[in-house]
Amino acid sequence: MARRTGRRPGNQGTREAILDAARAAFAERGFDAASIRAIAGTAGVDPALVHHYFGSKDQLFLAAMNFPVDPGEVVPRVLAGGQDGIGERLVRTFLGVWDSPFGSAGVALLRSAVSNEWTARLLREFITTQVLRRVLDQLDVDPAELPLRGSLVASQLIGLGMMRHVIRLEPVASADPETLVAAIGPTVQRYLTGPLST
Amino acid sequence: MARRTGRRPGNQGTREAILDAARAAFAERGFDAASIRAIAGTAGVDPALVHHYFGSKDQLFLAAMNFPVDPGEVVPRVLAGGQDGIGERLVRTFLGVWDSPFGSAGVALLRSAVSNEWTARLLREFITTQVLRRVLDQLDVDPAELPLRGSLVASQLIGLGMMRHVIRLEPVASADPETLVAAIGPTVQRYLTGPLST
Repeated sequence: MARRTGRRPGNQGTREAILDAARAAFAERGFDAASIRAIAGTAGVDPALVHHYFGSKDQLFLAAMNFPVDPGEVVPRVLAGGQDGIGERLVRTFLGVWDSPFGSAGVALLRSAVSNEWTARLLREFITTQVLRRVLDQLDVDPAELPLRGSLVASQLIGLGMMRHVIRLEPVASADPETLVAAIGPTVQRYLTGPLST
Repeated sequence: MARRTGRRPGNQGTREAILDAARAAFAERGFDAASIRAIAGTAGVDPALVHHYFGSKDQLFLAAMNFPVDPGEVVPRVLAGGQDGIGERLVRTFLGVWDSPFGSAGVALLRSAVSNEWTARLLREFITTQVLRRVLDQLDVDPAELPLRGSLVASQLIGLGMMRHVIRLEPVASADPETLVAAIGPTVQRYLTGPLST
């Protein structure tokens, strides 16, 4: 509580202290085990203030990752059409986010995750709890296969982001999005709902 | 020639000067346009010495990238079985290199390419001229589609390397290689020889 009663940081200082504590907690304990109460304690603020500033634990995670798009809003739209075509819709949505002004945040996140084990852990937690869990919960497949399916999808999508926006290998780097949706959608569809071995 | 007649660097100094000049040339001009003669000129040595130390331009590129495996030896083994099953063989070979002691060089290369545009250019040239060109030349598909096919394969394989060795998302990070070969092989096969749209 020292920071609240001591040098009385402004709102900005308090928000940053909460975000620092959140990043540490999510990276060290994982999203599920990290608690708002513990994060508030580390930041020296009341848990109610964390909720007041950031809302839910999901939303705090997005803010801590500096992530500009809320998968909690985007993923349901991908799922809305059912299992058929979910691969193409997921690739189209992924490309839409990366090709938007938000894409630079994605590139910055990848850069940081590759050079920094701490950010890699945060990104892993993010992919798993904010994106894959929401998608996989809706699939009608053997639950035991879900983790492998999810990480296969992540491998193709992160590779697509890398090649299009970081390494910039042509023609993937500047291809029309629908060309990539048509080519990569069936891959993601099979990883999600198809056979994983021949 | 100043360096040879001036402070007379040892062999190690000369080799490093050549490798520095090679990295600059390959990144700035691309592999095809870079010449041994120009690289030798920048390093202040005779072109014959470059050949003496490093062999061919391909081999100089491998040395400049600090790349421990020669695609010129590995890729022909992948191709030897013909088009059938080439996807699985390519994934198996890729995993074999990354899972070997050489894998740490791959991780270091990815880390550098993600944070450094210069290394990204070198990696792009490497993927295109040392790996993809060798594979694609052997395929019986529309030549106009080859660049897209190649960069799709690269997106899946780099994504696999990222997830298995850098981000380390489970279960891909510690899956049995043959599980990944069975799951990802058909993707690479389709990118190389199958339909790219539905």
